[in-house]
Amino acid sequence: MRYEFWYWNGIPGRGEFVRLALEAGGIPYRECAREPGIDTSDLVADMAADRDCPPFAPPYLVAGDLTISQTANILLFLGERHGLAPSDPAGRLWVNQIQLTIADMVAEAHDVHHPIAPGLYYDEQKTEALRRAGDFRGQRIPKFLDYFERVLARRGPWIAGDRQSYADLSLYHLVDGLLYAFPRRMATLARSHPGVMDLHARVAGLPELQAYLGSGRRLPWGDGIFRHYPELDAE
Amino acid sequence: MRYEFWYWNGIPGRGEFVRLALEAGGIPYRECAREPGIDTSDLVADMAADRDCPPFAPPYLVAGDLTISQTANILLFLGERHGLAPSDPAGRLWVNQIQLTIADMVAEAHDVHHPIAPGLYYDEQKTEALRRAGDFRGQRIPKFLDYFERVLARRGPWIAGDRQSYADLSLYHLVDGLLYAFPRRMATLARSHPGVMDLHARVAGLPELQAYLGSGRRLPWGDGIFRHYPELDAE
Repeated sequence: MRYEFWYWNGIPGRGEFVRLALEAGGIPYRECAREPGIDTSDLVADMAADRDCPPFAPPYLVAGDLTISQTANILLFLGERHGLAPSDPAGRLWVNQIQLTIADMVAEAHDVHHPIAPGLYYDEQKTEALRRAGDFRGQRIPKFLDYFERVLARRGPWIAGDRQSYADLSLYHLVDGLLYAFPRRMATLARSHPGVMDLHARVAGLPELQAYLGSGRRLPWGDGIFRHYPELDAE
Repeated sequence: MRYEFWYWNGIPGRGEFVRLALEAGGIPYRECAREPGIDTSDLVADMAADRDCPPFAPPYLVAGDLTISQTANILLFLGERHGLAPSDPAGRLWVNQIQLTIADMVAEAHDVHHPIAPGLYYDEQKTEALRRAGDFRGQRIPKFLDYFERVLARRGPWIAGDRQSYADLSLYHLVDGLLYAFPRRMATLARSHPGVMDLHARVAGLPELQAYLGSGRRLPWGDGIFRHYPELDAE
């Protein structure tokens, strides 16, 4: 069965965490919103369709009769079904826990440039964004990275130990987004987080991801969750 | 086995979603941070302890050798082990999806009064909070409640159909927090969301929750995630 995957076209977004798992697992899928003739209104119409498990928002995955949404939930499903997570219950919960912690940081990274309202432009909330960015750089990025560094020092080389899981792919993507959005701050923090940076490099070099990362399917960073506004960055 | 449950003392917080499941399931647990002689520093020290699966933040549950953190992850564990969620994979994923959507709204409800930094006082970010509250009341609360209303109309009477699950308990608590924090806005929205309000009333009346809801263990609302600042509310 070929999964149908739905996410807003044009940005990596939260959909990218799912794409990396699909690609690393060699799992066939259709990227529905990027197919010829499909536009945003088709995605909105599909989301409104009458189904047992309607999504609140993209990304979502249609797997036969199942519709699965919420990034961490899709990954839980793929992890179990395609061997992208440990098979024992404890390992499965652990990887889900890390994924949810990554999701928390992703939401905060978004709110740095949108601290007031997702429906307003950045320029309409730039004053507040400047203030929030200071706290994010000074308090929140170190707090999260310290935690991931501790986890990798204790468990490594991968988050769940010997074998990579979808949480490693997600941590790679999170760090990649931070490097794009906050290059000056990350240059400072990279020195004190060698385990996190090493994991980022190892995932980037995984043989099973090379074709994807070198393809046009891997969208460049832009105006999505991770945005580079030089005024929001500092050492 | 009696679980050890850890969460900050003094507020319902994210811990309350776990407590409601433990109580509704009749599951024995110790509320570690509320035991005599225990204070915040003990919780911080316990979190820093060397263990296979360190938590990033409370709440967390110690179940023998397992330490499980992230609210939705703890509920996933309890749901499976104690029959608080459907036993089929599709139902389990569905309830997890709803829980994650509830968690997203909980994070937004918190950020209404803390739009700049979790480490600053409300008064230090009140100007920004006033602005964010307008968007939350006008756009975000209706968007989330419309979704839950649609789910209950399609699936009801409970989120997963015939039987209650931990997601119903969580939706009850979310709505309860919104009623406390935004009474004027919720009085307006209650009229157009009868399914959500009916679920709130039905969970409040569950026989298995009466002892808990009437006890001192159920902490009152206060300065946690859901806060009532009259200036942030409006019809």
